[in-house]
Amino acid sequence: MNSRSEASPLSRRGLLTGGALGVGGAVAGAAVGIAATSADTRSAAPVTAGPTAGTDIGTAIEPFHGPRQAGVATDPQAHAAFVGFTLRRGVDRAALGRMMRLLTDDAARLTQGRAPLADTEPDLAVLPARLTVTFGFGPGLYAAAGRDERRPPSVAELPAFGIDRLDPAWSGGDLLLQICADDPLAVSHAQRMLIKDTRPFGSVRWVQRGFRRSRGVQAAAHTQRNVLGQLDGTANPRSGTTAFDQAVWVNDGPDWLRDGSTLVLRRIRAELETWDKLGRADKELAVGRRLDTGAPLTGRHEHDEPDFAALNEAGLPVIPDFSHLTRARVSDDRLKILRRPYNYDGAPDAAGRADSGLIFAAYQADINRQFLPIQRRLAEQDLLNEWITPIGSAVFAVPPGCAPGGWIGERLLG
Amino acid sequence: MNSRSEASPLSRRGLLTGGALGVGGAVAGAAVGIAATSADTRSAAPVTAGPTAGTDIGTAIEPFHGPRQAGVATDPQAHAAFVGFTLRRGVDRAALGRMMRLLTDDAARLTQGRAPLADTEPDLAVLPARLTVTFGFGPGLYAAAGRDERRPPSVAELPAFGIDRLDPAWSGGDLLLQICADDPLAVSHAQRMLIKDTRPFGSVRWVQRGFRRSRGVQAAAHTQRNVLGQLDGTANPRSGTTAFDQAVWVNDGPDWLRDGSTLVLRRIRAELETWDKLGRADKELAVGRRLDTGAPLTGRHEHDEPDFAALNEAGLPVIPDFSHLTRARVSDDRLKILRRPYNYDGAPDAAGRADSGLIFAAYQADINRQFLPIQRRLAEQDLLNEWITPIGSAVFAVPPGCAPGGWIGERLLG
Repeated sequence: MNSRSEASPLSRRGLLTGGALGVGGAVAGAAVGIAATSADTRSAAPVTAGPTAGTDIGTAIEPFHGPRQAGVATDPQAHAAFVGFTLRRGVDRAALGRMMRLLTDDAARLTQGRAPLADTEPDLAVLPARLTVTFGFGPGLYAAAGRDERRPPSVAELPAFGIDRLDPAWSGGDLLLQICADDPLAVSHAQRMLIKDTRPFGSVRWVQRGFRRSRGVQAAAHTQRNVLGQLDGTANPRSGTTAFDQAVWVNDGPDWLRDGSTLVLRRIRAELETWDKLGRADKELAVGRRLDTGAPLTGRHEHDEPDFAALNEAGLPVIPDFSHLTRARVSDDRLKILRRPYNYDGAPDAAGRADSGLIFAAYQADINRQFLPIQRRLAEQDLLNEWITPIGSAVFAVPPGCAPGGWIGERLLG
Repeated sequence: MNSRSEASPLSRRGLLTGGALGVGGAVAGAAVGIAATSADTRSAAPVTAGPTAGTDIGTAIEPFHGPRQAGVATDPQAHAAFVGFTLRRGVDRAALGRMMRLLTDDAARLTQGRAPLADTEPDLAVLPARLTVTFGFGPGLYAAAGRDERRPPSVAELPAFGIDRLDPAWSGGDLLLQICADDPLAVSHAQRMLIKDTRPFGSVRWVQRGFRRSRGVQAAAHTQRNVLGQLDGTANPRSGTTAFDQAVWVNDGPDWLRDGSTLVLRRIRAELETWDKLGRADKELAVGRRLDTGAPLTGRHEHDEPDFAALNEAGLPVIPDFSHLTRARVSDDRLKILRRPYNYDGAPDAAGRADSGLIFAAYQADINRQFLPIQRRLAEQDLLNEWITPIGSAVFAVPPGCAPGGWIGERLLG
C-alpha cells in the first residue's frame, strides 16, 4: 500500500512537471482535436424543433481559479456527486501535497472542458456543463498532515442529536470532493477521473449522488422543490450581498482558511410513507409555509416576512411555534447558513417504499456560530422531525481557492 | 396480500369512475392552482444571465394518447427509470385490467403535467419535462391473465449466451414501466406515484436508473457518448422513414400487439478497469470506429459507410473482422434494432472501481428476427466482449397506445 502511494504519485508528478511530455502532449493533442471536431459537427447539426436544440448548457463554464473555490456561491448545478475518502495509513503532509497538486490540476482542466493529463476517455471531458470541483478537508486530515493545531475547532464530528439515526456508511470522511455539473455524464466522468487519481492516497468511503431540477426546467433564480414537495432554500442569504459574504466565507478563522468556508453534509431520509398519510393542511402546519407558493402561512408570497404574532380564529398562532419555519428561523443575515441541497432517490424496496431524501449541504463561515444553534433548535422541537431522519453526517473545512500555478490547500499543506 | 390486492383497487376504482368526486376534485383543483401560481411566478422571474434562464425544458410535453405508446420513437430524454415488477399471486385478468386502467390514467395525467388523482405531492407534477411512461408486458403476465396463447413467441427469456453473467437482481419481470423525462425530479415523482398505484398488484423486482446528456448539452439529433467514451447508437434506423416503422413497430404479430413493439433490456457492465489499460488505437480497433468522430476506421464522418474490404499496409482489414462494428452490422434497415440506451453509474467500491455501464434498451418489431441474430454474432465473436459483461436481461412486449378513454393493454386484457 505504502509503496503504491509513493510510486504512483511520483510517476504522475512527472506528468505534471513536464517529465513525460510525450504522453501529456499526445493526450492534450487528442483533446484539442476532439474539441475542434465537436465544434464542427455542432455547426453542421440539423436544427431540431422544440426546446433547446442548442448546446449552451453543455459548453457553459464556471471559472476554476480565484480566491474562493467554485461550487459554493455558484448557482447550484442540476447534478452532484459528493465523494468522501478515508486517507490511507502513512499518507503524510508531503503525500497530501502531491495529491492536492494532482487533483487541483485535474479539476482545473476538467472544469474548463479539457481532459486531465491521464484521462482515458478525453472525449468525455469536452462538454463541462458548468462543472465545478470543490474540495473539503475532514477532521482526520489535519493530524495526518501533522497540522492538527490548525484544524478549525468546529471541523469535528457534530454533537449527537436525539433525532439522529446515523449510519457509518454515510458519515465521516477525511477528504471530500463535491462534483457538480448541469450534465450527469460530465459529473460521472469527472468523478471517475478524480477517484482514479485519489486512489493511491485514500479509499472511497461513500459516494452520494444527488439531483435538482435540470437546467432550463425552471428559472435559475427560483427556489427548488425537494422530494417532500416543499420549496427548499427560501431562507438562504441573498447572494451578492455583504451579509452573504459574511455568512459564507471565513474572515476571522485560521489564516490558511481565509476566503474558505465550512460544510456540514447531512443525509436526511424523507419518511414518505408516513408523510403521505398527512393531509395537505397538516403538512403546511408542520412546515409553516404553503406547499404551492412557499409563502409563510401568514403571507402570500414566498419571500414575505412571516408574522409569528398572527393568531387564527381559535386564538392559536397561525404559524405553529414548533413549525420548521419558526424553529429554523434566523433573522440576522450574517448568521444564516447557505443551504445548497440535492435530492437523492435510491432504489425502492420490494414493497415499493422509496429510499429518498435530501443531501443537505450547508455552507457557513463557522459551524459553531451558525449551523449548530439552528440544528439544536430543530432537534429539540420541529414538527417536521417526524417525517425526516438524519442518517448521515460529515463535516469539512473548504479551503480557499488558488491562482493559476497554485493548488488547493497549499496554505495548510505547503 | 390478496385482500389488499382486492380492496385497494376497488376503492381507487371509485376515484376513476367518479365515485369519490369530492376527493378527486379537491386534488385536481389544487393542481390547477399550482399551475397558475407557477405561471405567475415564472413571468415575474428575474432574467438571469447565461444559458437557459428560460423554462422551456420543464414545460415541454410529449403526447400520451395515440395509436403507439410514447417513449419508443420519442427522442430520448435525459433521464430514465426502468421499473420491473413481479405480479402478486392471484392477480388475474380482471385485476390486471384494473391495474392498467389506473396506471394509464396516472400516466396520461403525469405526462401532461397534471397530478394523478391520488397524488400526494401534486406540486411536483407541474413540470413534466417531456415525461413519457411506457408499459411493457413480460413473459409471466400472459399466463396470469389466462392469455398465454396470445404471448408473442419471442417474448420469453432469451437463450443463454456464453458472455452472460446474469444476476437475477437485474433480470426478468412481469411488468415494466419505462419512465423518461428531461428532469430527474419529474422521473422521481412519476416513479413514486406509479409504484404506489402498482403495489396492490405487484412487488418491485428491480429499478434501473439511467442517464444521457442533459437536454441542451448537445444538439438533440446527435449521437451520444456512453461511459466507455464511444458514440452509441450511430447505426439506428433513421426516424421518420418507412424502414424505421417496419423495424420498430409490430405489423404482422398477434392482433392485440399491432402498433406495439418489443423491448430487450440488458444491463451491460463496462469493465472500465481493463478498458483503461487499452491504448486509444486498440480501443478503436475493438469498436471499429474512431472514438472522437465515431467514423468507421475507413471513413471520415460518423455516418460514412464502412469499407470492410479496405486493407492496411500489412494487408490486414482496416476494420477488423471481429470489431463490434463488423459483428453488429445490419444492412437491411428493416432488420435493424432501435437502440435507446442509458448510462448507469452506481457507487464505486472502496478501491474506487466504478460500477458503470449501459442500460441497453433495444426496441424491435420481432426479437427473434432482429435482436437475436445480432446478439448471436456478438456473443460468438466481438472484440468488445472483453470489456463489457451482460449482467441483467429482461424481455417485454410493448402494447400499442390508446385513445382518450381507453387504456394500455385493453386489446389483451379487456
